[in-house]
Amino acid sequence: VRVDLNADLGEGFGIWRLGDDDALLDVVTSANVACGFHAGDPLTMRRVCARAAERGVAIGAQVSYRDLAGFGRRRMDVEPEELAADVLYQIGALAAFARLAGDRVRYVKPHGALYHVVADDPRQADALARAVAGYDRQLPLLGLSGSALHRAADQHGVHFVAEAFADRSYRADGRLVARGEPDAVLHDPDTVATRSVEMIRSGTVQTIDGTPVPVRVESLCLHGDTAGALELAGRVRAALQAAGVTLAPFVR
Amino acid sequence: VRVDLNADLGEGFGIWRLGDDDALLDVVTSANVACGFHAGDPLTMRRVCARAAERGVAIGAQVSYRDLAGFGRRRMDVEPEELAADVLYQIGALAAFARLAGDRVRYVKPHGALYHVVADDPRQADALARAVAGYDRQLPLLGLSGSALHRAADQHGVHFVAEAFADRSYRADGRLVARGEPDAVLHDPDTVATRSVEMIRSGTVQTIDGTPVPVRVESLCLHGDTAGALELAGRVRAALQAAGVTLAPFVR
Amino acid sequence: VRVDLNADLGEGFGIWRLGDDDALLDVVTSANVACGFHAGDPLTMRRVCARAAERGVAIGAQVSYRDLAGFGRRRMDVEPEELAADVLYQIGALAAFARLAGDRVRYVKPHGALYHVVADDPRQADALARAVAGYDRQLPLLGLSGSALHRAADQHGVHFVAEAFADRSYRADGRLVARGEPDAVLHDPDTVATRSVEMIRSGTVQTIDGTPVPVRVESLCLHGDTAGALELAGRVRAALQAAGVTLAPFVR
Amino acid sequence: VRVDLNADLGEGFGIWRLGDDDALLDVVTSANVACGFHAGDPLTMRRVCARAAERGVAIGAQVSYRDLAGFGRRRMDVEPEELAADVLYQIGALAAFARLAGDRVRYVKPHGALYHVVADDPRQADALARAVAGYDRQLPLLGLSGSALHRAADQHGVHFVAEAFADRSYRADGRLVARGEPDAVLHDPDTVATRSVEMIRSGTVQTIDGTPVPVRVESLCLHGDTAGALELAGRVRAALQAAGVTLAPFVR
Repeated sequence: VRVDLNADLGEGFGIWRLGDDDALLDVVTSANVACGFHAGDPLTMRRVCARAAERGVAIGAQVSYRDLAGFGRRRMDVEPEELAADVLYQIGALAAFARLAGDRVRYVKPHGALYHVVADDPRQADALARAVAGYDRQLPLLGLSGSALHRAADQHGVHFVAEAFADRSYRADGRLVARGEPDAVLHDPDTVATRSVEMIRSGTVQTIDGTPVPVRVESLCLHGDTAGALELAGRVRAALQAAGVTLAPFVR
Repeated sequence: VRVDLNADLGEGFGIWRLGDDDALLDVVTSANVACGFHAGDPLTMRRVCARAAERGVAIGAQVSYRDLAGFGRRRMDVEPEELAADVLYQIGALAAFARLAGDRVRYVKPHGALYHVVADDPRQADALARAVAGYDRQLPLLGLSGSALHRAADQHGVHFVAEAFADRSYRADGRLVARGEPDAVLHDPDTVATRSVEMIRSGTVQTIDGTPVPVRVESLCLHGDTAGALELAGRVRAALQAAGVTLAPFVR
Repeated sequence: VRVDLNADLGEGFGIWRLGDDDALLDVVTSANVACGFHAGDPLTMRRVCARAAERGVAIGAQVSYRDLAGFGRRRMDVEPEELAADVLYQIGALAAFARLAGDRVRYVKPHGALYHVVADDPRQADALARAVAGYDRQLPLLGLSGSALHRAADQHGVHFVAEAFADRSYRADGRLVARGEPDAVLHDPDTVATRSVEMIRSGTVQTIDGTPVPVRVESLCLHGDTAGALELAGRVRAALQAAGVTLAPFVR
Repeated sequence: VRVDLNADLGEGFGIWRLGDDDALLDVVTSANVACGFHAGDPLTMRRVCARAAERGVAIGAQVSYRDLAGFGRRRMDVEPEELAADVLYQIGALAAFARLAGDRVRYVKPHGALYHVVADDPRQADALARAVAGYDRQLPLLGLSGSALHRAADQHGVHFVAEAFADRSYRADGRLVARGEPDAVLHDPDTVATRSVEMIRSGTVQTIDGTPVPVRVESLCLHGDTAGALELAGRVRAALQAAGVTLAPFVR
């Protein structure tokens, strides 16, 4: 049994920092590196790529709407052609730093509002999958299983990797309970750690109603933007290792 | 006898355009494509790369300080490490579009204030040459012969390609007469066209004092940002062809 | 009988220009000056304000989403509090240049996607009206009669000024035929000029079905971003003057 | 005996924070509020202005080069006309939030590289002083006594307020020992606190050579970007109050 652990990295900009990249690089096996559109200046990108490569952490392009002021968290009505070009620009920029580190970009994951939009909107999902296919059909997309992006990736012949969330409640239909609703986010470290192991072992997750539902977990998404989140991420990693789960990038 | 003709392309941003990219692509053999820091949005970069590749025009990364508001024309005291990272980011971003067009980035040329700073400042020149060497030691730098950048390129084992200006006056020491000084820029199309042919044939240029001085011309720099400039560029091309000079990218 | 003529001005950025501000300032009585979020650099804002003040053209703040790359034409899901702050920032910035010109900001008009969103979305409309009311309750908002923004302005005690479009087709319900539908935009200068006079004289407009519908016209919106648009704007102005309509800012 | 205490505030951007604005507002009497060019998004500007106004802290415009990526710390060769327009834009933007808080902008202080450049470069110093004079000749400039900006302010009839630094070493000529030289920055809280009181009481400061030199202290510049800096700022405030120095904004 094996799983990948992914988290967002390099999300500072210029003088500003967000989270502890170095600590998080000791936890994850895949790094979603910000590419400059919602966060991520070139120096930070270079440093994160260098350290990820040293540790054998897979480098992924965390692509976003062009929105530094809103950290890419605001839905934008970007034309598909323009979105595709924006995505290519970001992948290419990150690829330079991966190359400098003797490595390359291994996957693409949408960030923030784009992540949510491409889960439902076929036009933007198609634009993102088409951009990735145009750049390199071998490059996988990481996202939500069963989403519009998943279908678009299939259509464009792009390998889709499904991620799951150990600290989020699931509904009976397998989707996440929306943030803001009661008990949408789980905070107890023991619960989250135990849940991680169960999701991976059983291929199911206990829904908010108490019934199990199948879940595809090729990668678990962790967070490191606060001290608490980082500690939780470490707990999940330790629990998985204790349970004999192999932690490794989903890409070879 | 052969020479390359280079010019700046893709220097619009979003809704704004600058010059006529398509017309200029019929004149030049190398396109210095703006990479988003002084100009150049992703859609424009994609289109220019596609059309350059179709026509056999070599794609070069026109790298700049991060300064959209000033079009990269303002000297900036950027730390070498940061400048190197900014340059890598831009080369990488353009490389994605060159790749999409079935081609690749063939050379790097600094833009605007960066061009002038790296002609004299060894620290920034070294940062630029080091960035290029780190990315791909086979990638040539295009710039001013005898400049600090020329020396830095030599030190880093990067091939340096010397460009000359048919519409600028030269001093006895082989440097350009500074813009703003009398007769710094030549405007008469016949003079400029004749001068182009002579520079390439003889390897010398008539200085502002009337004496000839040696000039290394692997590429001639043309402009297309006004209707007049574009017409002049066409005249230079026609004169060179009429004189039997082969026009071809300096890269194979 | 009197009417105001408004148009967007100062929509260049840095080296890039859009339209002929000086020519347009001879046509309009109110200038919607871009404030830096979709277009409009500080030097341009200063120049446009100075020239508008000289000619007695009213200075209005043309506020937008923060989106230079998309020229403010992309709908963005901005939180109301943040939108209100963005609007205040832009009004304030323009006010500095109006003040330098011995004048002040006389009204506010939303630009691009924001214009369309606040016509229908009560949350963003409320945020915009609240921002204006908080800054200066005497400052009118210019927009579409009967829109969500109109209602929000009424609720916040902000004076709302209704604009109409001489070159657009109207539906039987008084709304504009959407761009992209057949005959949505009128191109014949004579038709548009005649229509301008009729709208203002009769207070009605011929709909696309041929029936008249009431229209409130305190200001006519003109365009100057192309040579054709500028010429059309001049034709409308001339036709209104020939018909004895007084052209003057809607603000005193 | 009285003195003003100033510090930089509102230097986050979007999701990113820098320093603890609320804690610092309890220490200072004047807030240099970032205006969006090196830091400072509109929501942050609004919040800082509201809280400063509540506490009777004077609101100042901390103006900068347009350089978010470099936090305004990189010297830029901006043309005087453009620099003046950039400064006006920032003052105006902040003025909107001061107005919303029932207050107004009380002074202007240059930030980062601009602070250093206008200390020596008469062209940029003149542009800054001219911009302030054009906006409001009653608006004081806060900076380094004896600097080029001081002279430019005098020439433009702008009141100049001199600040001093309790945690920096002074040379015999009254200038600061450059950062990077040994003992340029004082770290011991007791030393800095004692020094603050002495500077204000005696109007002199002990130089790095041990001899006293006159120093004009209308405002003391404090920092709050780290926990240590914030604590030091609190210590200086407490020491001044214990010594009977009145702490109040330099503006009425």
